[in-house]
Amino acid sequence: MKFQAEINVMPLKALLDPQGKAVNATLHGIGYAEVSGVRIGKHVNLEIEAPSKEAAIEKVTDICSKVLSNPVMEGFEFHLTEAKD
Amino acid sequence: MKFQAEINVMPLKALLDPQGKAVNATLHGIGYAEVSGVRIGKHVNLEIEAPSKEAAIEKVTDICSKVLSNPVMEGFEFHLTEAKD
Repeated sequence: MKFQAEINVMPLKALLDPQGKAVNATLHGIGYAEVSGVRIGKHVNLEIEAPSKEAAIEKVTDICSKVLSNPVMEGFEFHLTEAKD
Repeated sequence: MKFQAEINVMPLKALLDPQGKAVNATLHGIGYAEVSGVRIGKHVNLEIEAPSKEAAIEKVTDICSKVLSNPVMEGFEFHLTEAKD
């Protein structure tokens, strides 16, 4: 079975997010004063071949924690959908 | 009303995504051969104050197309939820 994973890797809430702060300030500077709390991370799409949804979840968790995120600074979340083909 | 926007900015499907290609190759290199089609973009969270959901959608669309994405190379999608506070 083939699954499509949609992964978000975001800076941890407890940490400053300089990129988000910069975008927040820029938005205020160009007139979007109603915006606040900007945080910026990565969005990753990938396809994974696995015998079951459980196996796919395990693999993707592994990949996220070992490769896609830095656990000192970032958290991740994802959801899987079965790819149709 | 306050809304929470979850925005994804991704490289257009028609274009190469060198960052995604690199991660794809790395994952194969370390034994995750079952992974394919890695694409990497940005995930942005922000809060926006607006009189209605329609107004918030309009503002966020504006912000995405003018500030957060480069329309030559990237597309965006988002969803809004009402923030409780």
